[in-house]
Amino acid sequence: MLRKEDISSIKALTFDVFGTVVDWRTTIIRECTRVGRSKGIKLDWAKFADAWRAGYAPAMNKVRTGELPWMNIDEIHRMILDGLLLEFNIKELSETEKDDLTRVWHRLKPWPDAIRGLRTLRRRFVVATLSNGNISLLVNMAKNVGLPWDCILSSELAKHYKPDKEVYQTAADLLGLKPEQIMMVAAHKDDLYAAGRVGFQTAFVIRPLEFGHEGKPDLITDALFGVTATDFIDLANKLGG
Amino acid sequence: MLRKEDISSIKALTFDVFGTVVDWRTTIIRECTRVGRSKGIKLDWAKFADAWRAGYAPAMNKVRTGELPWMNIDEIHRMILDGLLLEFNIKELSETEKDDLTRVWHRLKPWPDAIRGLRTLRRRFVVATLSNGNISLLVNMAKNVGLPWDCILSSELAKHYKPDKEVYQTAADLLGLKPEQIMMVAAHKDDLYAAGRVGFQTAFVIRPLEFGHEGKPDLITDALFGVTATDFIDLANKLGG
Repeated sequence: MLRKEDISSIKALTFDVFGTVVDWRTTIIRECTRVGRSKGIKLDWAKFADAWRAGYAPAMNKVRTGELPWMNIDEIHRMILDGLLLEFNIKELSETEKDDLTRVWHRLKPWPDAIRGLRTLRRRFVVATLSNGNISLLVNMAKNVGLPWDCILSSELAKHYKPDKEVYQTAADLLGLKPEQIMMVAAHKDDLYAAGRVGFQTAFVIRPLEFGHEGKPDLITDALFGVTATDFIDLANKLGG
Repeated sequence: MLRKEDISSIKALTFDVFGTVVDWRTTIIRECTRVGRSKGIKLDWAKFADAWRAGYAPAMNKVRTGELPWMNIDEIHRMILDGLLLEFNIKELSETEKDDLTRVWHRLKPWPDAIRGLRTLRRRFVVATLSNGNISLLVNMAKNVGLPWDCILSSELAKHYKPDKEVYQTAADLLGLKPEQIMMVAAHKDDLYAAGRVGFQTAFVIRPLEFGHEGKPDLITDALFGVTATDFIDLANKLGG
């Protein structure tokens, strides 16, 4: 549990984005369904969306281990998409359409509490992204739906992907803060454990629907985390509004 | 002059900050005067402010040429301040007070048109800083006065100072845009010439009072620049509001 003195030392909150701030799955399914309809492709688009997301961690790990050179998430999303189009035998998309579909990740919609919660938190703290998504993706996403960030930070700036420690260290350097003055906010424990090892404070936000109604999200918190919150409004309340 | 087709290709505006967005001189003089009064130091604080600013380009150039290792602007401002305190024989400041005074550059106030102009421009374009100021300085400044940036970009991300080409190239990479889709906005021609050489479009904003009423600002535009504007509202009008 977080003590009052821990809260008063926090200057900035850094947020994981995919799953924590935005509901990637609903947007991806909706946009893929729309594309499918316009092209006369019948498919289980939820399965397609889940496969697209599932390809992301292994691809990032290949970058993290050096098996692949540095690629940003736009490039990773496109590489996975190209594989899925083969696997699902989809041949109807032009290059431009594939590019546009890749950019669906720039157009993800926030969870219903996210904007209101961020606005409240922003009154007291610097609120920044700290996402594996690239800067342009995060800028376009914020602009598209009005996410009120003070600063867009990304793994791209460290040329390392979370949970590599360099990502959190780079964020602390750029924010001009000590790690303990920053709280990492995420719906994924591996992100929080890694941030915690660098010295960040941690807040676990439970997002039960990240993987859909039949998904298996991580809902069990850990006493190691400073705060566990049901959404960003609860988080703002727990950090003293 | 800018043609209509040039304007329609612009996706983002990147702004020089010191002098272009904020009136560094007035804030520095005011805060130094306040510190001086509280410490009983009598001095021509305008001269002190001008000397502080004048130390900036030579120090940056030492970093640019490799004579000094990479230092961010906070470190450069502190180094120059330490020299000035010796030069002006000021011995009354503690370490904490010197740190706080250095951070006056985080608290600079915008020109009267800046926030309104940026709000208008932001409806149509991504608006980002592209300053030699470090990220935390720019974040704190924006938060302090409400500058509505979509994204905070800085020379710090390239570990090069403007006018080095790496700064502009890094910004284009991070924004996911071609140089010609970005317009650099500055009150200083060297910044615009350098951006232009990388392929950015350019807008010269005239800031007659950057160096005070007796200063010698650069008021003569160049036909090379796409736009010349008297302030950010004029810029918004010239870019089609």
